[in-house]
Amino acid sequence: MICNNLGINAVGHLTFAGRDTVELAKTYGTPAYFVDEEKIREKCRIYKAAMKESFGGASHPLFASKSLCFKRLYEIMKEEGMGVDIVSSGELYTAVAAGFPLEEAYFHGNNKTDEDIRFAMDHHMGHFVCDNMEELEAIDAEAGKRGIVQKILLRLAPGIDPHTQQKINTGRVDSKFGVGIETGQAEAAVGVVLQKKNIALCGYHCHIGSQIFEYEPFCDAAVIMLKFAAQMKEKYGYEAAEINLGGGMGVRYIEGHPEIDYAENIRGIGALVAKTCAELGIRMPTILMEPGRSIVADAGLTLYTVGGTKVIPGFKNYASIDGGMPDNPRYTLYESPYTVILANRATEEADFNCTIAGRCCESGDLIQENVNIPKPVRGDILAVLTTGAYNYSMASNYNRIPRPPVIMLAKDREYVGVRRESFADLILNDM
Amino acid sequence: MICNNLGINAVGHLTFAGRDTVELAKTYGTPAYFVDEEKIREKCRIYKAAMKESFGGASHPLFASKSLCFKRLYEIMKEEGMGVDIVSSGELYTAVAAGFPLEEAYFHGNNKTDEDIRFAMDHHMGHFVCDNMEELEAIDAEAGKRGIVQKILLRLAPGIDPHTQQKINTGRVDSKFGVGIETGQAEAAVGVVLQKKNIALCGYHCHIGSQIFEYEPFCDAAVIMLKFAAQMKEKYGYEAAEINLGGGMGVRYIEGHPEIDYAENIRGIGALVAKTCAELGIRMPTILMEPGRSIVADAGLTLYTVGGTKVIPGFKNYASIDGGMPDNPRYTLYESPYTVILANRATEEADFNCTIAGRCCESGDLIQENVNIPKPVRGDILAVLTTGAYNYSMASNYNRIPRPPVIMLAKDREYVGVRRESFADLILNDM
Repeated sequence: MICNNLGINAVGHLTFAGRDTVELAKTYGTPAYFVDEEKIREKCRIYKAAMKESFGGASHPLFASKSLCFKRLYEIMKEEGMGVDIVSSGELYTAVAAGFPLEEAYFHGNNKTDEDIRFAMDHHMGHFVCDNMEELEAIDAEAGKRGIVQKILLRLAPGIDPHTQQKINTGRVDSKFGVGIETGQAEAAVGVVLQKKNIALCGYHCHIGSQIFEYEPFCDAAVIMLKFAAQMKEKYGYEAAEINLGGGMGVRYIEGHPEIDYAENIRGIGALVAKTCAELGIRMPTILMEPGRSIVADAGLTLYTVGGTKVIPGFKNYASIDGGMPDNPRYTLYESPYTVILANRATEEADFNCTIAGRCCESGDLIQENVNIPKPVRGDILAVLTTGAYNYSMASNYNRIPRPPVIMLAKDREYVGVRRESFADLILNDM
Repeated sequence: MICNNLGINAVGHLTFAGRDTVELAKTYGTPAYFVDEEKIREKCRIYKAAMKESFGGASHPLFASKSLCFKRLYEIMKEEGMGVDIVSSGELYTAVAAGFPLEEAYFHGNNKTDEDIRFAMDHHMGHFVCDNMEELEAIDAEAGKRGIVQKILLRLAPGIDPHTQQKINTGRVDSKFGVGIETGQAEAAVGVVLQKKNIALCGYHCHIGSQIFEYEPFCDAAVIMLKFAAQMKEKYGYEAAEINLGGGMGVRYIEGHPEIDYAENIRGIGALVAKTCAELGIRMPTILMEPGRSIVADAGLTLYTVGGTKVIPGFKNYASIDGGMPDNPRYTLYESPYTVILANRATEEADFNCTIAGRCCESGDLIQENVNIPKPVRGDILAVLTTGAYNYSMASNYNRIPRPPVIMLAKDREYVGVRRESFADLILNDM
């Protein structure tokens, strides 16, 4: 099994977070997302402890809300003492509704509207991660109007290409995010920021990409950021107090993916950061990281009911499910790998090679191709593993299909994190 | 201009459906979808008239709801005497809420759940388009329980490859949809269907793909379907009353796309169908077609506000907007082409080559690359044309961004078709 919260019980059913998944499907219906709350808490603690140990007291992880966002998640993050990375007023609203202290939040995004800026300042957003010069002017102007000094990080494009999927590769100099170091724009931007009366520059941010299994790209990014910090110290006499290395550590979706020791990675980066700071003659900044996927992905699992199979002799086979790209668009978008298990017959021979087809009227609505499972029949329960990140948060109502519920599985209780959408919800805003 | 509902007025603003788009943005905010109701009605009438003329009295178009689905659309379809193609219980619910008579509806999809089947029969769904044998058994069983005879079409995979985008190419024999003719499975299926006591087979359905500019694939499909019908007449003595050729006619998104004369295409298919029926010695069936995109695409336009530009010397340029893949995922999914116009400076020289970046924290969140517009500044209004199909209907809340409203532009009035989502809507189901 690809994660230690999975197993098979005596009746041959897949278990998840200590529960029989077939029973879960019966109780909550399908399709449904299930979230292993303890796994999320465990990951938060791994990041927190390793970052404190490696980077010192004030360093801490910020949960990247966009990977899985609903009220209860912010409550859990608050309980675990995590910061959060927020990317829109909608996430901000959700965090506020959950009572999350926004002083601990960082507001991201390549295009914050004037409304976003006002809304975030209304709620005393801790830091803006400022992406570009027009945004900088807008933040400065609004802060000036309010008579406040707004803390920001400046987002840099460090020019790193971690060789991951193109669409989720964000650190290259030609990315839509940040200002480039190698183009000289970052240096110029720091000069401008330091002149702004209503802005306090706290440091720099970068994010090099997603689903990165290697350890080196993060080290490379850290060194580039620290060198830039040292250059800015020399040029402007400004020493960065914080460096935010973003997120992007990989998650094991399939057996072929390596297991990642997040704590070990962080310790390695920590050692390099300390060494580099010493070499550069700068003080060790507070280091922030923004794990999203690696906090929640393997805390999630989706259960579906099979509608039937289709055998096309000489071509291919399909198994159809009662969900698909509306609840998990990641295969359609990126051909993302997933592990698929026939949950109610988990010990039977997996001798049916097939494509898992969603129920949408769209050929590309597939969840995975070329998987081996026992040949399913209508009514079987199919589990797609590792769906905690970027499934619920990316879900649509394409084909007017209601979004599944998010069921939380905690140590001593199960509860609904997000209710299943009703048909009435679908037409709520139809006039 | 790529469609006759677009223009530029005396103050250099883009006009759409006779309105100044800059005024529309001011009135309704951005991002927002705008729908030219008269264009939709015009397209419905073109299809209706051409089909009646070409295929005879009972033949008519069914609007493919999945391309643009909300209550008001079903009212318009009812007013225009269109049938509808429905793909889920959610669409069905919306149609019922709009008072659309379901006797005129066809229920599609590769995986109708038992609940879908019951729900559709509760509402006296006219036809099921039956996709596979397991579904056939389920429909027969439920109809038997209710003591009704359910009308169906059998969905066939005609083995046509119209060379369009892989993900929206649905007529090949290895598609997830239907039963294949060339594998012999379709013939066997007809034999089974004809034995079912609670099912009345009305004919056959196929759908070869989407955004098809050529005329020949539809002719090929029609001939294959008619030949199959003739073979079934010979084998089983069963003569199909209806043949449904699905949808898929292309739409002009960019200048490089041809203009399509839908009526002329239909007349051409009509002549071929009549000739083929005569040759095969079968009576001319009622012909159905399922236009979706070609009814609504160029009736739609989305307006955004620009957040700023990013010039990365030696690499590329960006213009960022206040929407993106949550409201229009089609570039991210398929690299779909769109025409982009700076609406408030539509006559200025378009000398800024750039990528239109959405506001999501995701590198792939782009609306279009390599477009030429006047270099925009924060606050400019950007129009993306031809967004009537598969934009609102595919929209998500990724990054917890509320979905834009759909504003209807009719001849003598403007009104809200779908309200803008509120932040409160976003957390409606968060517990």
